[in-house]
Amino acid sequence: MKAKFITLDGIDGAGKSTNLETIRLWFEQHQLPVLFTREPGGTAVGEALRTILLDSHSQLNARTETLLMFAARQQHLDTVIKPALAAGKHVVSDRFTDATFAYQGGGREIPLSDIAILENWVQHGFCPDMTLLLDISLSVAQQRVAQHSDPDRFEQLDSAFFERTRKIYLDRAATAPQRYHIINSNQPLAEVAAQINQSLSQLFGYTA
Amino acid sequence: MKAKFITLDGIDGAGKSTNLETIRLWFEQHQLPVLFTREPGGTAVGEALRTILLDSHSQLNARTETLLMFAARQQHLDTVIKPALAAGKHVVSDRFTDATFAYQGGGREIPLSDIAILENWVQHGFCPDMTLLLDISLSVAQQRVAQHSDPDRFEQLDSAFFERTRKIYLDRAATAPQRYHIINSNQPLAEVAAQINQSLSQLFGYTA
Repeated sequence: MKAKFITLDGIDGAGKSTNLETIRLWFEQHQLPVLFTREPGGTAVGEALRTILLDSHSQLNARTETLLMFAARQQHLDTVIKPALAAGKHVVSDRFTDATFAYQGGGREIPLSDIAILENWVQHGFCPDMTLLLDISLSVAQQRVAQHSDPDRFEQLDSAFFERTRKIYLDRAATAPQRYHIINSNQPLAEVAAQINQSLSQLFGYTA
Repeated sequence: MKAKFITLDGIDGAGKSTNLETIRLWFEQHQLPVLFTREPGGTAVGEALRTILLDSHSQLNARTETLLMFAARQQHLDTVIKPALAAGKHVVSDRFTDATFAYQGGGREIPLSDIAILENWVQHGFCPDMTLLLDISLSVAQQRVAQHSDPDRFEQLDSAFFERTRKIYLDRAATAPQRYHIINSNQPLAEVAAQINQSLSQLFGYTA
């Protein structure tokens, strides 16, 4: 079986950390080799860039931010994701290019066509086999983020920013329903986990 | 008079630092307001990226390196270069986009058309009013660089790399002889300085 590339995405507060644990358990139960990674980050250079990108004191403009996201992604793809897939390991990434379209495109209003140019420059058509999109209402997401003691550059943004971000995630999911599995993250955790398990089982052909 | 954007470029060892002093003196003598800056760098984020780019331990791939150069440039243009020009200050930058074509395109062999895509993404046609290209033979340049006690990632590269880099600088200069002033840096310093002074005087209309 060809190794799969799976991404988990959604706005801040959508519950990515909790649900990564569900995914981890699923791979453990099915005894499949898997690498967990994240964006921005996943490499030494990527983690250095993550620090610059999330530091609430960075005076980054939105176009610089977009280029840095793709710089980190280029390194991540070439030195981590593609080699792991080539070696037969499945890869799960906490965020990927959808986040750049949603945050820099939706949130920061960089034209989506400009982001598509960089996507093509870096990925040449490479994309995830499945994207689990955790969708949540703004009010619930913001209650969760408000509990963070030290919000990063993104978590400090206002609701209009996150409304635009959420909208782009949903728009993108609508254009490729085969690839995107939208998970309603307003549901109780057990139901969210059941839906994630079902999506994974379907991708790997464990269900009828 | 519209403020001018001047860049100084050339391979490592071509004598940029020494000749920046010549340019500085020229502006002082003519009492014109000027800002000196450099790439990669010129901003807080740019200097952080410069550290990553030049660190001899960074395991950067060539496409990541190219994206980082343009990320630093985007920030530099939007927060330093363009505001200074708009305020009537001339700007002199130690390296600019020609260096990316020469080093990442020539040296590292990233397709020049890929670099042109990023140039357009970041600059939308913006380019220097004049580029002083210090051209030097490889053997002289390498003797100079060999005296550096702690060579950076680029200074450690081999002659074939710098031959390719030098070639792209010269190719680009040939396509726009109005903009590029090629200065033969193998000459005695006083002659190099005289040529730089002449180029500056010509740009600002101080000579017939």
